[in-house]
Amino acid sequence: MRIGIDMMGGDYAPQEAVKGVVQYLQSSSAIDVTLIGDEQQVKSLLTDAPPTVRFVHAPDVIGMQEHPTKALKEKTNSSIAIGFKLLATGEIDAFISAGNTGAMMVGTFYSIKSIEGVLRPTISTIIPKLDGSFSLLLDVGLNADCKAENLLQFAILGSLYAQHILKIDDPKVGLVNVGEEEGKGNLLAQAAYPLLKASEQINFLGNIEGRDILQGKADVMVCEGFTGNVILKMAESLYDVAVHRGLKDDEYFHRFHYENYGGTPILGVSKPVIIGHGISEAPAFKNMIILAQKMLESDLLGKMKSCFVA
Amino acid sequence: MRIGIDMMGGDYAPQEAVKGVVQYLQSSSAIDVTLIGDEQQVKSLLTDAPPTVRFVHAPDVIGMQEHPTKALKEKTNSSIAIGFKLLATGEIDAFISAGNTGAMMVGTFYSIKSIEGVLRPTISTIIPKLDGSFSLLLDVGLNADCKAENLLQFAILGSLYAQHILKIDDPKVGLVNVGEEEGKGNLLAQAAYPLLKASEQINFLGNIEGRDILQGKADVMVCEGFTGNVILKMAESLYDVAVHRGLKDDEYFHRFHYENYGGTPILGVSKPVIIGHGISEAPAFKNMIILAQKMLESDLLGKMKSCFVA
Repeated sequence: MRIGIDMMGGDYAPQEAVKGVVQYLQSSSAIDVTLIGDEQQVKSLLTDAPPTVRFVHAPDVIGMQEHPTKALKEKTNSSIAIGFKLLATGEIDAFISAGNTGAMMVGTFYSIKSIEGVLRPTISTIIPKLDGSFSLLLDVGLNADCKAENLLQFAILGSLYAQHILKIDDPKVGLVNVGEEEGKGNLLAQAAYPLLKASEQINFLGNIEGRDILQGKADVMVCEGFTGNVILKMAESLYDVAVHRGLKDDEYFHRFHYENYGGTPILGVSKPVIIGHGISEAPAFKNMIILAQKMLESDLLGKMKSCFVA
Repeated sequence: MRIGIDMMGGDYAPQEAVKGVVQYLQSSSAIDVTLIGDEQQVKSLLTDAPPTVRFVHAPDVIGMQEHPTKALKEKTNSSIAIGFKLLATGEIDAFISAGNTGAMMVGTFYSIKSIEGVLRPTISTIIPKLDGSFSLLLDVGLNADCKAENLLQFAILGSLYAQHILKIDDPKVGLVNVGEEEGKGNLLAQAAYPLLKASEQINFLGNIEGRDILQGKADVMVCEGFTGNVILKMAESLYDVAVHRGLKDDEYFHRFHYENYGGTPILGVSKPVIIGHGISEAPAFKNMIILAQKMLESDLLGKMKSCFVA
């Protein structure tokens, strides 16, 4: 199996991407990597690459501010466009980029299919729990408006991710809501509750409130992508708050630093695609490669596919 | 002018309510108070009340778990029902309770009118900024589903509150959203943005993201009550997180302790009604009385009414 990495994506590319690859190769050689980008630039930074490392030349870059659809269409020699071509043809088995998020989304939906039965793919984030473990929050921005059926599917996808990647047995699913009791919430939450309750594919805990998010009451927290995105960015800002308060080294707050989780996989599509933060540095790249490796080795996608077979 | 206080509302009533009233009376005698509750109980705890303090006997209490509409209808001698009667007839000019929140909402809507032109009254919360000042977030749970017009009205009501109660000149309004650019967001945020932008009654900053909430980028943050409630409770939980991390005395995190802001006024109704946390102790009661005093002395309601005149 092979993981493809966009070496030109992100604010500190290709230097930090190269450093991240080197860190990964030093810690593991379980999975081979294909480095996609300006071959000369990348090779000059990675002088003693092992023979298993493949290079694929991509002379163009899609900038962070470019229009995703337009850029992907016009820049067929960009690292993102070539990455998706390799993924679609099976030359790589997973694709990672810290580049233009929109282009990664569009590329995913045009190049590889959704898992059959999945209405809307989703993106998630890790939220550190006070006890040292992690919970998963989804959707965090791909689907700003949702139907109840979408939330049920996010719960199923998130449960599988929590089980096989975060190694949580029988993960507890919570519906993000404004009160504990059934019947609380906006129209969407009211409609989603009975679907989640009736599902035999998840371990539904009931509603969780804003105060339960950091406390880690649930292992998988489900909501539409508007609320989820606000929660994600508010949680991420806790690291900055801690730095501002002189608590940079506090173990708990440090875990909100984006580098620790590396990137966000798109869940519900048929192959692993991981999107990194634009400001990704080496540890983030390394952690994204490790995450892709876990997704491949655990056959997470195969498990997701079998869950959505009619 | 007179402020009515429900002495029987909240988990620690009437003891903490009495203590809060005593603390208020020691610090100020600007506004008279009417204490509503079991007269014998309250008087036995408040032995040397000044002659300006009025007592109104209310032998019944609406419990925290009772059904709001049913309880208000049946318990006409409860402190909340009597409080609203006094407010409606003008015997008190503001009403405060830490009792059953639902009953306070229902009581408000049945006893006193919305300000003419206000489609939906709203509730707000104070969010501490890193620089030591405060911003206002609304709606935080009264309106889980909203239309764009509601968000515009929340922005106007919140701006007046920020100006006259928080003493912020020309408060900057931010629309809580998933991205900075115009056009981002769910259907509601997309529809609300141009209304906020076009309004001459507010100083619209544009979109703000989750990361801007604690950083305090805007003075008034507007969203529907679902997202707002999740933000509010997540922010409140920062105090508990800080306690858990041994940072109880950190000046910033301590400001998330609910006691510091006391209670939440219902904005958009024709008289001041303030709802306290069920776990309110003496300082929270004192601060709610001070807030009611500020609302009356600044004629906030008069200013709101003149803003919504067609």
